[in-house]
Amino acid sequence: MNYRMILKIIGRVVGIEGALLLIPTAVALYFKESPKGFLVSIAACAAFFGLSVLISKNCDNRIYAKEGFTSVALAWVVMAAFGAIPFVIEAAIPNYINAFFETISGFTTTGASIINDIEILPKGILFWRSFTHWIGGMGILVFVMAVVPMSEEYSMYIMRAEVPGPEAGKLTAKVQHTSIILYLIYIFITLAETVALKICGLPLYDSVVHAMGTAGTGGFSSKNASIGAYGMPSVEIVIAVFMMLFGVNFNIYFFMILKKFRAVVRNEELRVYLFVVAFATVTIAFNIRHLYDNSMATALRYSFFQVNTFASTTGYTTAAYEMWPQYSKTVLTLLMFMGACAGSTAGGMKVSRLIILVRSAKVELKHLLHPRSFNPVAIEKKAVSKETLRSTLVFFEIEMFALALGTLLISLEKGIDLTASLTSVASCLANVGPYFGFGKFSGNFANFSYPSKLLLSVFMLMGRLELYPVVILLYPSTWKKKGQF
Amino acid sequence: MNYRMILKIIGRVVGIEGALLLIPTAVALYFKESPKGFLVSIAACAAFFGLSVLISKNCDNRIYAKEGFTSVALAWVVMAAFGAIPFVIEAAIPNYINAFFETISGFTTTGASIINDIEILPKGILFWRSFTHWIGGMGILVFVMAVVPMSEEYSMYIMRAEVPGPEAGKLTAKVQHTSIILYLIYIFITLAETVALKICGLPLYDSVVHAMGTAGTGGFSSKNASIGAYGMPSVEIVIAVFMMLFGVNFNIYFFMILKKFRAVVRNEELRVYLFVVAFATVTIAFNIRHLYDNSMATALRYSFFQVNTFASTTGYTTAAYEMWPQYSKTVLTLLMFMGACAGSTAGGMKVSRLIILVRSAKVELKHLLHPRSFNPVAIEKKAVSKETLRSTLVFFEIEMFALALGTLLISLEKGIDLTASLTSVASCLANVGPYFGFGKFSGNFANFSYPSKLLLSVFMLMGRLELYPVVILLYPSTWKKKGQF
Repeated sequence: MNYRMILKIIGRVVGIEGALLLIPTAVALYFKESPKGFLVSIAACAAFFGLSVLISKNCDNRIYAKEGFTSVALAWVVMAAFGAIPFVIEAAIPNYINAFFETISGFTTTGASIINDIEILPKGILFWRSFTHWIGGMGILVFVMAVVPMSEEYSMYIMRAEVPGPEAGKLTAKVQHTSIILYLIYIFITLAETVALKICGLPLYDSVVHAMGTAGTGGFSSKNASIGAYGMPSVEIVIAVFMMLFGVNFNIYFFMILKKFRAVVRNEELRVYLFVVAFATVTIAFNIRHLYDNSMATALRYSFFQVNTFASTTGYTTAAYEMWPQYSKTVLTLLMFMGACAGSTAGGMKVSRLIILVRSAKVELKHLLHPRSFNPVAIEKKAVSKETLRSTLVFFEIEMFALALGTLLISLEKGIDLTASLTSVASCLANVGPYFGFGKFSGNFANFSYPSKLLLSVFMLMGRLELYPVVILLYPSTWKKKGQF
Repeated sequence: MNYRMILKIIGRVVGIEGALLLIPTAVALYFKESPKGFLVSIAACAAFFGLSVLISKNCDNRIYAKEGFTSVALAWVVMAAFGAIPFVIEAAIPNYINAFFETISGFTTTGASIINDIEILPKGILFWRSFTHWIGGMGILVFVMAVVPMSEEYSMYIMRAEVPGPEAGKLTAKVQHTSIILYLIYIFITLAETVALKICGLPLYDSVVHAMGTAGTGGFSSKNASIGAYGMPSVEIVIAVFMMLFGVNFNIYFFMILKKFRAVVRNEELRVYLFVVAFATVTIAFNIRHLYDNSMATALRYSFFQVNTFASTTGYTTAAYEMWPQYSKTVLTLLMFMGACAGSTAGGMKVSRLIILVRSAKVELKHLLHPRSFNPVAIEKKAVSKETLRSTLVFFEIEMFALALGTLLISLEKGIDLTASLTSVASCLANVGPYFGFGKFSGNFANFSYPSKLLLSVFMLMGRLELYPVVILLYPSTWKKKGQF
C-alpha cells in the first residue's frame, strides 16, 4: 500500500476543505456571529495540509486499485472529521460523535439529523451544515480533480467512486474536463433554484440554504418543520421540481447543451424514472386524499413533493407523511431503495441498476425456457457488458446483505421495532434522511446510541460511495498484504 | 404448448391425491367421524383423473422446458384446489377461498393458518391438514415419479422444480431411483420422530400429526398453543432436534447409509447451517434470559426451539416469541430468509445459495482490487459453474423483488404496518407460517382480505417451487407463442 500517496490525496482534500470553510466564515461575519469555530477548523485543515505536503513530498505517484478505493473512502471520513469541528466549538452540537454524525450526514447528502431545535442555531453554522450537502453532492474529489490536475488513471478511480451509477462515463476525452463541465452544470442549476425560491418570496439566506440542500439531494433545512414551515405551495412546487431535476443524470443536461435532444428523449433511465415518479405520485394521492378533505389537488401536491423527496433521496418534508396509510409509506420506502438516476447527485440503488436487474431476470427466464438461447441484457439497444451485469447483481446483493446486517445491529437499541431499525438503516444507506420511527425513535436520530450513530455513519458513507470503496476499506485483507512502499 | 401432456401429468397427480385421501378417510372412520368430505373429494379426484386419461389418450409425450415448469406449478394449484374440498364439506372451513389458503399452506409446508380454534375440528380433518405437509414436503410429483416411471428428461424438470436448492442433484443414475431413495429416508425419519414423541408420552395421534408437520417442515399443529400446549420440555427438544434434522440435505443421510462419512464431515453447507443455528441460539438466549428468571437453561431451550422452527421454516412455537426483544425477532426474521439446506424439506433461500452469494461478493471485491485476476466461486473446492452463479444471483434478486411487490400489495390492507406486511409476505415466501403482526393481524392469517389471501397463496407456491415455475406460469409470454399442438 502506497500510504504516502494516500496521505497526499487526503491532504489535498483537507486543504480544499479549509479553503471552502472561508465561505461559511464570511456568512458568520455578515450576520455578526462568532467565526471562531470556522477559524479553528481552517487552521486545523491548513496544518494537516501542510504536514501532508511535507510527508508526501517526492513520493511515488503510482497508484493501484487498492489505493484508489481506500483513499477516496478515507478522504471522506477525514473530511467529516474536520468538518465537525465548527459544530463542537460553537456549541451547536457539543458532543463530537454527534457532530461527526451530522457532518458525515451532510457530506454524504443524507440529511439525517440529531438536532432537535434547528432554528436556535447561528446562521453561519446552518449555512455550513447545508453547504456540506452541496460539496458532497457532486463529490469533493471530483471538485479537487476539477481544480488540480491528476493522472488519468487515478481520476477514473475517483469518478467511479464518487459519481454514482453502474458504469462511470466520461463526457469528454479528459476526465478533468468532464469534472469541470459537471460542476458548471451543478452551479448553474443551483443558482436557478436560488433565484426561483427568491422569486417565490423566500429570504435570500433561506433560498441559498434550501437550494444547496436540494442540489446535493441532502435535505438539511434551516427550519424545524422543513419546507412545511413556509406553508407556501409555490415554494413546495419549486423545490419538488428541482429535487426531480437533481435526480436526473447530468449527462442529460450536457446533451441538452450540445442540442442532442434525440439522446435525451431516447434515454431509458430517464423515462423509467419519470414514469415511476408519476405512478407513485398518483397512487399515493388517491391513497391519502381522505386526509386532505378529499381534495385531489392538495393530495397531489403533498404526494408529488414527498415522492420526489424520497426518490431523489433528498429528505425535505412538507406533510406528516408518517401518518399516511401504510400503502403510501411502503411506496416511499421502496422509492428510497430505488433512488433516482445514475450520474445525478441522488442516492439509492439508481434506476439504471434497477433496469439492469429487471432485464437480467427476464433474460434468465427466457434462458430457462429456451436453454440454448442466451440474449444479453440491453439498455437502449446496447448490450450491457458481462462485467457490468455481474457487478450490478453483486452490488444489489451486497446492499441487501448490508441492510440485513445493519437492521440486525440497530435492533439492539432498546425499545426499537423492525420498521424503525429497517427504515433507519435503509434511509442512511440510500442517503435519504427521514425514516419511519415511533416514540423516542421518531423524527430524527438524536436518541440512537453512540455505537448506532457510528454504524449509521458507515452506512451513509457506503451509500454515498456506492458500497465498494467502503467495503474495501473495511475488508481486513486490504490491509494485510505487503504494500508497495 | 402441449396442453394435453400437461393435463395428463396433472391428472396423474390428482389421481394419486385421491388415493392418498383414503388415509384420512380411514382416520375419520376410526374416530367415528363423518367421512363425507373425504369421499366427495376422492370422487372428484377420480372423475378428474378419468377425464384426463380420456382426453390425453395417445397424446404427444414430448415435453419442453415450458411444459415442464408450468405443469409442475399448475399441478400444485390443482392439487390444493381438490385438497380443499373436505374442509368445506365438513364445515371445518366453510369458505372455499379460506379452505384453499389453508390447503396450499399445507402442501407448500408453510403452515400459515386462518383457523382460530383448531381443537374443535374433527381428528380426520386435522390429520389431513397435517398430512398435506408430509406430502408437500418431499414433493408430490417426486412421489408420482417414484411410483409411475416417466421420461428421464421430464423427471429432471420435476427434480429441479420440487427439490429445493441451486442445483438439482441425482443420487443415482436414474432419477426414479433417486426419488425412491429420498422417500424411503423421509419415511424412516418420520417414523423415528413418531416413535420418539410416543416415548416422550404424547398420544399416538398427536405423535403422528406432529411428526408429519415436522417432516415437511410445515408447522400445522392439532393444538391451539402449538407445541407449547404440552408444556413438556422433552417433546420440545425432540421436535427441535427433528426440525433441525429435516433441514439437512437428504444427500447427507444417503452418504451416511453408504458410510461415506468423510463426505458428510466435509459438507460446507451443513457446517455453515449448524454454525448459524448455534450462533443464533446462543445470542438469542442471552437476549431473552431476563424474561425467564435469568435461567440460561430455560432461555436456551426456548431459543433453540424457536431458532430451529424459523431456520427449518417449520413454524411450530413454544414461547411468546412475539414479546421477545427486537434483536431476537430480527434474528428470527433473517433466519426465515435463509432457510436450511438445499435438498431438504425446508423453505427459505437455502444455506448453499447464501454461501454462493457471499463468495461471489468476495470474488467481486478481489476482482476490483486486482482487475486482471478472476477466481471462480467455489464450494468444497469445486468451482461453481457460471450458470449456477448467475442463476443464484438472479434468484436472490427475484426473491427480493417479489418480497418488495408483495409487501407493497399487502400494505393495502387497512390498519397494517410495515412489520406485519413485510414479515407476512416473507413468511409465506419462505414457507415458514408465523410472522410478526399486531392487533387484528396477530397470531394467524384469518383477518387478511380475500385478495391478500390469494396473493399470499401465490407467494407460498413461489416459495415451495423456488420461484421459477410460478414466475414462468404467470409470465404472459409463456402463453403467447404458438404451441406444439
